[in-house]
Amino acid sequence: MNVLVIGAGGLTGKKIVKQLAESNQHLVRAMIRKAEQTDEMERLGAKAILADLEQDFSFALNDVNAVIFAAGSGSSTGHDKTIAVDQEGAKKTVDFAKEKGIERFIMLSSMGADTIEEAPASLVPYLEAKKAADEYLIKSGLNFTIVRPGGLTDDPGTGMIELATRFSPMGGTIPREDVAHVLVESLTMKETEGKVFEIISGYTPINKALTRI
Amino acid sequence: MNVLVIGAGGLTGKKIVKQLAESNQHLVRAMIRKAEQTDEMERLGAKAILADLEQDFSFALNDVNAVIFAAGSGSSTGHDKTIAVDQEGAKKTVDFAKEKGIERFIMLSSMGADTIEEAPASLVPYLEAKKAADEYLIKSGLNFTIVRPGGLTDDPGTGMIELATRFSPMGGTIPREDVAHVLVESLTMKETEGKVFEIISGYTPINKALTRI
Repeated sequence: MNVLVIGAGGLTGKKIVKQLAESNQHLVRAMIRKAEQTDEMERLGAKAILADLEQDFSFALNDVNAVIFAAGSGSSTGHDKTIAVDQEGAKKTVDFAKEKGIERFIMLSSMGADTIEEAPASLVPYLEAKKAADEYLIKSGLNFTIVRPGGLTDDPGTGMIELATRFSPMGGTIPREDVAHVLVESLTMKETEGKVFEIISGYTPINKALTRI
Repeated sequence: MNVLVIGAGGLTGKKIVKQLAESNQHLVRAMIRKAEQTDEMERLGAKAILADLEQDFSFALNDVNAVIFAAGSGSSTGHDKTIAVDQEGAKKTVDFAKEKGIERFIMLSSMGADTIEEAPASLVPYLEAKKAADEYLIKSGLNFTIVRPGGLTDDPGTGMIELATRFSPMGGTIPREDVAHVLVESLTMKETEGKVFEIISGYTPINKALTRI
């Protein structure tokens, strides 16, 4: 497939780009906001697409079969950026994906987007943005998968997870490398189509966990 | 602890009694409805208590520290028995446990008791009874754990599960032997106190899964 990764310059985004390129199953387009990330994306084996989620980026979806949305404004930005990027950026991507007839849409969401009433106050704006984006995608008619990881870490991936409709509010963490792996696998696994699920580190091989959704 | 198992003569109940007796950590009282089950309970290492959930059975909770409620009217009985045993029997047990100052109450519930709107129609009366009993227990102020397994099987236990707030509507199955193990372990694991969770067969050792609720 010809896959567009949105948020390719981020911590999880880079791991997604790398895994997609290494799979040799996909052509990878890496959407980045900063020109200085171009070299890194090309070194990873992707075609860099310079575009901004807060502008018109519909051209980035030309000739693309699948989208992995992994953009996030980050925890250091204010509420306005969370709305602009995590929520409105995602919703615009959904709109463009419909216009262009994209076959597959994988959304990187967050554990707790379904249980906001139980979240710490500092996370509420972020979770509300993710929830609004997820609901917009679910209603879009696109062929979606929504992946909601627990707390992200930079530990090396283990390839082993647990997967459920809801772990929250119980919590848990997971390395970004394993999250990237789940997103990439979901692209081609029929079992994940139309599904929303949470993941944390665990003892089940990723492929196995994804077959029994 | 001095543990009363309610529903001890059932398929899961017998496994609970056996494991409790073999643990050598507990004195086991096995509440049964039919006198002819007495020998079997004593052979398993328990003291048999003959009592009926549809009558006054408060005496069965005398000198008891903990209750495991594993009674069920079974799938071959009608809706009236489901209400009488699964729901009202459980609620009466909660009332008696409060009166007697029971320290620990472990409830065998069912996956799907929280997502009845997604269940097949044939299961709805059963799940509604379980849900009503669970809610009654949660509000009781007792020190509870509510365990909600997926579809029960008679396969040998593996000792390996997955545990989450919700797997349903995704589903899954689990051997009764593993369910019994989770109920017995929950008795003495602080981490499970006040928790409601679903379990299915998986790849995580039971003890490990229960520590990270």
